[in-house]
Amino acid sequence: MRGNALVIQSGGPTAVINQSLAGVMAASRDYPNIENVYGSYHGLHGLLHENFLDLSLEPVSVWKEIANSPGAALGSARIKPKNSDLERVFNVFTAHNIKFLFYIGGNDSAEAAQLIREEANRLSYDVRIIHVPKTIDNDLMVTDHCPGFGSVAKVVSNIVAGDDLDNRSFYNSVKINVVMGRHAGWIAAATAIAKKGHIDVEAHDEVGPHLIYLPEVDFTLQKFLDDVQNTYDRLGRATITVAEGIADKLDHDKFAGEQDEFGNAQLSGSGQLGDFLSNLIKKNLKFNSTLGNLRCRSDTLGYIQRSLAGMASHIDQTESFQLGSQALHYMMSGETDKMVTLERIPGQTYSCSIGLCDLKLVAQKTKLVPRSMINSQGNGVTEEFYEYVLPLIGDLPEIRALKTPHVEKKLPTYVRL
Amino acid sequence: MRGNALVIQSGGPTAVINQSLAGVMAASRDYPNIENVYGSYHGLHGLLHENFLDLSLEPVSVWKEIANSPGAALGSARIKPKNSDLERVFNVFTAHNIKFLFYIGGNDSAEAAQLIREEANRLSYDVRIIHVPKTIDNDLMVTDHCPGFGSVAKVVSNIVAGDDLDNRSFYNSVKINVVMGRHAGWIAAATAIAKKGHIDVEAHDEVGPHLIYLPEVDFTLQKFLDDVQNTYDRLGRATITVAEGIADKLDHDKFAGEQDEFGNAQLSGSGQLGDFLSNLIKKNLKFNSTLGNLRCRSDTLGYIQRSLAGMASHIDQTESFQLGSQALHYMMSGETDKMVTLERIPGQTYSCSIGLCDLKLVAQKTKLVPRSMINSQGNGVTEEFYEYVLPLIGDLPEIRALKTPHVEKKLPTYVRL
Repeated sequence: MRGNALVIQSGGPTAVINQSLAGVMAASRDYPNIENVYGSYHGLHGLLHENFLDLSLEPVSVWKEIANSPGAALGSARIKPKNSDLERVFNVFTAHNIKFLFYIGGNDSAEAAQLIREEANRLSYDVRIIHVPKTIDNDLMVTDHCPGFGSVAKVVSNIVAGDDLDNRSFYNSVKINVVMGRHAGWIAAATAIAKKGHIDVEAHDEVGPHLIYLPEVDFTLQKFLDDVQNTYDRLGRATITVAEGIADKLDHDKFAGEQDEFGNAQLSGSGQLGDFLSNLIKKNLKFNSTLGNLRCRSDTLGYIQRSLAGMASHIDQTESFQLGSQALHYMMSGETDKMVTLERIPGQTYSCSIGLCDLKLVAQKTKLVPRSMINSQGNGVTEEFYEYVLPLIGDLPEIRALKTPHVEKKLPTYVRL
Repeated sequence: MRGNALVIQSGGPTAVINQSLAGVMAASRDYPNIENVYGSYHGLHGLLHENFLDLSLEPVSVWKEIANSPGAALGSARIKPKNSDLERVFNVFTAHNIKFLFYIGGNDSAEAAQLIREEANRLSYDVRIIHVPKTIDNDLMVTDHCPGFGSVAKVVSNIVAGDDLDNRSFYNSVKINVVMGRHAGWIAAATAIAKKGHIDVEAHDEVGPHLIYLPEVDFTLQKFLDDVQNTYDRLGRATITVAEGIADKLDHDKFAGEQDEFGNAQLSGSGQLGDFLSNLIKKNLKFNSTLGNLRCRSDTLGYIQRSLAGMASHIDQTESFQLGSQALHYMMSGETDKMVTLERIPGQTYSCSIGLCDLKLVAQKTKLVPRSMINSQGNGVTEEFYEYVLPLIGDLPEIRALKTPHVEKKLPTYVRL
């Protein structure tokens, strides 16, 4: 088989989505039966409108920096192909002699790739299709983890590591960080890595995040308040991670005044969930007022999670590149209708091999955080999660909090007027 | 003079505030007339309540990691000393034989240090006081720049660099990032550095941030909308930086429905300013609907700006350490009632010497971004700003956007049903 290859990037970008593109490009140079590699400009939109970039014209020298850049270098889109679109797709494939399709995306893209396969079968159009996984949500089936997740895990854990130290600078201080994750709590769980950057292992019980709420676990406001009170009573402060999907779990009837604020459409990127929980704590937490007022803040981490320049995980970069290049090698050996996967090799040292699975095992499915990686109280993670996640991050910044002994007091207690 | 030294950290922490503390500690080992170095636990609160940490007991080995950790390792506070407090301060100084005071903080701390000096004079208590500058806001007088600013500049520019690439992944996409800065726009201006990470200099006109709004410049919603429309018309998208202080500039009478949302108290850390501007754009921007809907998002960057672990500027770390150690050397040579300053040495290669200025030149004053560093349209920065700021950041991640030629189309235009 001989013809042109088309690469599509789809859905929300990640910090390493361009590594997979660069991997496809690098491997394509070994195969003369790939005439040109085109990039679909803005995903399926570009495919429907024949907006193709001729990536074969880019000099080899640009790909290192493209690969290191966040965002989808080809442009992305969030379009599901309709029946009428599928006919057009094959008109375009025919006109441009597209024989090899690489779909870099999540479970929605896997579904789109399947629809294109079904139409190809109906039309007896010969095209090979391989799906290259990409999602910060880490919620694809079969693969050990998803390219993009290691980097978002590194970003959110460095954010929470620093934020917890910032927060402990103040008395009576409670900080909530709302992270991405509607159905799966992988990103929320990853903030637990913040503890592991602390050199001083004895301090791990004191450093945050102290509480982590995942969509996989039942959530009630009373349990949440009890957890925060317990943490405050133990440490005089709290650093809390909440997955945005928690908003779907709130009992709207019980909190009628708030129910309009948690419509699904407004959830993502809005500060409402954090503000709501923060106000709840301000109203209910019993704190030591001799140390000052209660300080309660929330941040919604937003697009920085998937796009921060200069903080990608090296492992994640390498694996994303390898998945792209291996997808091409597999396709040239005749494989089609598959997703490339990461398979963790058991052993002392972390390593993954790159395998294949049927596309239909992935499309429209979601892998949740297993209960065994969530602690019994449902507000944190277990060692099993740390074993799973730590190899995906690379080095952590080495941080430390002071544990200095206090000097003996010499004066009567001071009561401030 | 012989006695104990006391170090106070005050106000909002930075990513490098502990470097100055480590600098004081390192230099203190050279002077036997400093008996012990105490840290005031939670700023002035610790001073009033004799909550001192005996830092001399910490092993030398911990200071590297403490210095690299964000947050105030001693704990901070936001308390202004009252007259009744000042009497207590000197009871505590006397009881603990405090003869050397280091105040690491911003212009509020400089004022507190001045009040302590005046009380010392009244009581004829012999104490030396040196203020070590610290503020992400970069708004202290005399010093070329403030420790903490280089790191926040690096963080916000890496955020905006990645976010702009994420944003350009989508058609018709407008993104607003709200950054800290109530009165001075230094942090907002620093997001312009995002352009300079792009290897491809020709691309600098296309990459964001395309518009930057500083509190130093008049702001009207009509001018803002015109700017966004012009950027959209040129590029089909826009990445915008807004300093939080812009909220104070909004004409509340004209936008009566919104006026309650911009109370000063709620401004910081709330998403309201971003949401307000985002809604304004959604209502008013004329866009090409054949490419899809308008996508308009805002993020309020929050505490991550000053606390992100693992992304401090190396220059900033070094200078903050040197200011701490030099503050101690100056004090031991007899100096008091001064702030240590960074003085940029003219020349090809960036370097600063460490000088001194009178505390009263700094207290309660604010250094704004000079008009010559802001472009004529008032929505961006000039080369003069880049010359000022780039040496403070260190290396930028090297990123690149694709500029690939489009493939010739072969089919009739597709109209999607």
